[in-house]
Amino acid sequence: MTFENDTTWALLTDLYELTMAQSYVQEGMFQQATFSLFTRTLPANRSYIVCSGLESVLTYLANVHFSSEDIRYLQSTELFNSEFLDYLYNFRFTGEVWAIPEGCLGFAEEPLAEVTAPVPEAQIIESFLINQINFQSTIATKAARCVWAAEGRPVVDFSLRRTHGIDAALKAARSSYIAGCESTSNVLAGKWYGIPITGTMAHSFITSFPDEIESFRAYARSFPDDTVLLIDTYDTLTGVRNAIVVAKEMENSGHRLRAVRLDSGDLLGLSKQVRAILDGEGLDYVRILASGGLDEYRLEDLIKTGATIDGFGVGTRMGVSSDAPYFDMAYKLVEFGGRSVLKLSTGKTSLVNPKQVYLCTDSGGQFSNDVLALRNEPAPAVGKPLLEKVMDAGGIIAPLPTLNETRERFKKEFSLLPQKFKKLQNPPEYPVVLSRGLQELQSQTEQRIAMQTSGLAQVGCTIDPRTCSMG
Amino acid sequence: MTFENDTTWALLTDLYELTMAQSYVQEGMFQQATFSLFTRTLPANRSYIVCSGLESVLTYLANVHFSSEDIRYLQSTELFNSEFLDYLYNFRFTGEVWAIPEGCLGFAEEPLAEVTAPVPEAQIIESFLINQINFQSTIATKAARCVWAAEGRPVVDFSLRRTHGIDAALKAARSSYIAGCESTSNVLAGKWYGIPITGTMAHSFITSFPDEIESFRAYARSFPDDTVLLIDTYDTLTGVRNAIVVAKEMENSGHRLRAVRLDSGDLLGLSKQVRAILDGEGLDYVRILASGGLDEYRLEDLIKTGATIDGFGVGTRMGVSSDAPYFDMAYKLVEFGGRSVLKLSTGKTSLVNPKQVYLCTDSGGQFSNDVLALRNEPAPAVGKPLLEKVMDAGGIIAPLPTLNETRERFKKEFSLLPQKFKKLQNPPEYPVVLSRGLQELQSQTEQRIAMQTSGLAQVGCTIDPRTCSMG
Repeated sequence: MTFENDTTWALLTDLYELTMAQSYVQEGMFQQATFSLFTRTLPANRSYIVCSGLESVLTYLANVHFSSEDIRYLQSTELFNSEFLDYLYNFRFTGEVWAIPEGCLGFAEEPLAEVTAPVPEAQIIESFLINQINFQSTIATKAARCVWAAEGRPVVDFSLRRTHGIDAALKAARSSYIAGCESTSNVLAGKWYGIPITGTMAHSFITSFPDEIESFRAYARSFPDDTVLLIDTYDTLTGVRNAIVVAKEMENSGHRLRAVRLDSGDLLGLSKQVRAILDGEGLDYVRILASGGLDEYRLEDLIKTGATIDGFGVGTRMGVSSDAPYFDMAYKLVEFGGRSVLKLSTGKTSLVNPKQVYLCTDSGGQFSNDVLALRNEPAPAVGKPLLEKVMDAGGIIAPLPTLNETRERFKKEFSLLPQKFKKLQNPPEYPVVLSRGLQELQSQTEQRIAMQTSGLAQVGCTIDPRTCSMG
Repeated sequence: MTFENDTTWALLTDLYELTMAQSYVQEGMFQQATFSLFTRTLPANRSYIVCSGLESVLTYLANVHFSSEDIRYLQSTELFNSEFLDYLYNFRFTGEVWAIPEGCLGFAEEPLAEVTAPVPEAQIIESFLINQINFQSTIATKAARCVWAAEGRPVVDFSLRRTHGIDAALKAARSSYIAGCESTSNVLAGKWYGIPITGTMAHSFITSFPDEIESFRAYARSFPDDTVLLIDTYDTLTGVRNAIVVAKEMENSGHRLRAVRLDSGDLLGLSKQVRAILDGEGLDYVRILASGGLDEYRLEDLIKTGATIDGFGVGTRMGVSSDAPYFDMAYKLVEFGGRSVLKLSTGKTSLVNPKQVYLCTDSGGQFSNDVLALRNEPAPAVGKPLLEKVMDAGGIIAPLPTLNETRERFKKEFSLLPQKFKKLQNPPEYPVVLSRGLQELQSQTEQRIAMQTSGLAQVGCTIDPRTCSMG
């Protein structure tokens, strides 16, 4: 079950996609157009993108069409002529898609996906494509940062209640699982995606009992082999004493308390006190989990300062990527009917033509740089092509990887990214160099357009003229 | 059509809601529990909340149940016993809901909704309730700020491509429309909610033609009475000259160019130059629209500095509420089986019992303060009760207001909020005072719990002891 198997999302598009498409149809413009989906610059403290969202997009593209009801709605707006409404009634996506697979790393200026199709088709699908890949990659990237900061301690997705709606809740769980979260609290994500689900108790459970210890006992009766007690409802140090009483009762009946959870206060100090108290009672097997306003910055801080926390529930700030709730992802026309195209808007210049990204590694196998090249120029002597052809003539080419395969892929790729790019604050920019072929074509195209556009001040390559020795 | 008419969202809950519910069921605990949904403190630069999301929640509550497939999934987790799975199979929400209507203003610490139901029911619905009201109110509040900053100039929702998924895209359009946006670019939101839709053209449209002026002409042929030309693709001042040529051609055939759009560069300077050029050509009727990275701060700045912009397309930053992508909304148990309850977690103390919020006005009819009182204490001499009973025995009590009614309601309420609370930066905190009855019960309950909880340091009222003379 996914949202995209549904067939009603064709209208989830910006109106201008449809008005432009009507104009294309009216002008008889059905030439092949290639659009490139990329992020010009990354948000602060980001050097990489964890690609996520392609499965949603491909499923959408394979299913997208306008229902009779959609057509009637469009007709009611009185914006569209009957020729165009007929076109929409028969609309299917027939194009091809190249993309970096989910779980792989992308960087600024690199196409994460390229779409080639008759221009009205490539245009109409724009809004959905950006919406999904931008959001899901934003969350996957944030989650990767959290998991990395946890230094091997499990991170669980607790974000459902603060994500932006239903679709966000589900895909935040999925994207954070790809990026290494161990499980999610989101039950429907467990059902839809097969992600392991975990959960314990809320403060309300404890306050619904006359006293804390009775609530602990009741929970242990229900889940004798899977109890995590939340100990901060009234006072954490009293809470851990109550948890110890219950843990010993559990031992007497042949069970073990799994963990206690801290959700407020000074997590560093409390974790140390709680650890000492538990150990003093011979309960060294009881783990300490923590939650409450966590993100990668807080995790790094807690671990650096020696908090004795064994696992983290990370919610809101991961699920909305609070310090960077979006990438500035754009979908730009780069080739039209065989002609290289670009725009020159201030600060928003785009790179021409269908492209390929080559991932280069150093002698130790670690990622050293990417090369951004024209798709049709000879491949460089070294480097692995990252963009794969995933859709042809509107059909998904190969079975999509399973979620666990994608998760493993991320784990492997991320292990090859040098540590300096994983720094949470001010990481260096990952080197992406332009091939000579791309540089030359870019420069020629800019000059051609400059000549056509009277009054245009800029000439020459307006893109950062980084060069690449492609051997 | 809404997502919540669908019936599969029961599983969109945190696992702990279900594990706690199993424990409640196993312990025979079906007492009436009241939970309060509120925000303890508002994000920076916020003094008010525009309430949004209630319609989604009520529709969900009226429909929520577990399908056979849901039950099978839960069974497969091996976490739940058959007694509880039977309970879930027959689960319906049978409780009552009090809430501040959509479009009204709420403030920190005030319940936006209160739910009373047998405790397992009130617990299971928590995650969905917070998810929807938190997100939708976050966006409605952000949009209200943008619309206010635009000082009467129309603001259009352009956020679809950067919102967090499908549900977010639709509800961002709806919430921003409630808060005064004039229209949306999101076509499906137009169909589902009846919101006016608007749209023009993208840079890709222009770059797909051999030159800019031909693209302008083609669009004008398709939409002779509704053309807005995007003029920054290559060079804005060249773009406006091309637009003028086309505008005059349109005049010759009896039409008028509606507007030009700026999407990059120095919007202040360019708007003035473009205005002067248009006016110099007798095209004073052609409006100037602007978009690109806008939010309320940028809008205020543009207007203060005299930008000649007639309307704004606001996208990403509004649709994700980029400076504050969530409220810290919580859903806390406040009464259980007739007993007042609260938690005392550091920095997270909750207020006891079902409540009512009274809105007080000054002699000029402007909002002066709210009073937060026990629902069952006598109403103050002045003040209008804000929480309305909207659901009883699991059924929606009265027909929900239409979207336009809610939008009008917001407009009226917002007009009564004094200007100082609308300031975009560092507005004062809106005064919310606690009634004497609430203060006393809070204090008594804290003392009772302190006595029960050995080692508990705090006694007395831990809530900001603001007092209220309730006449």
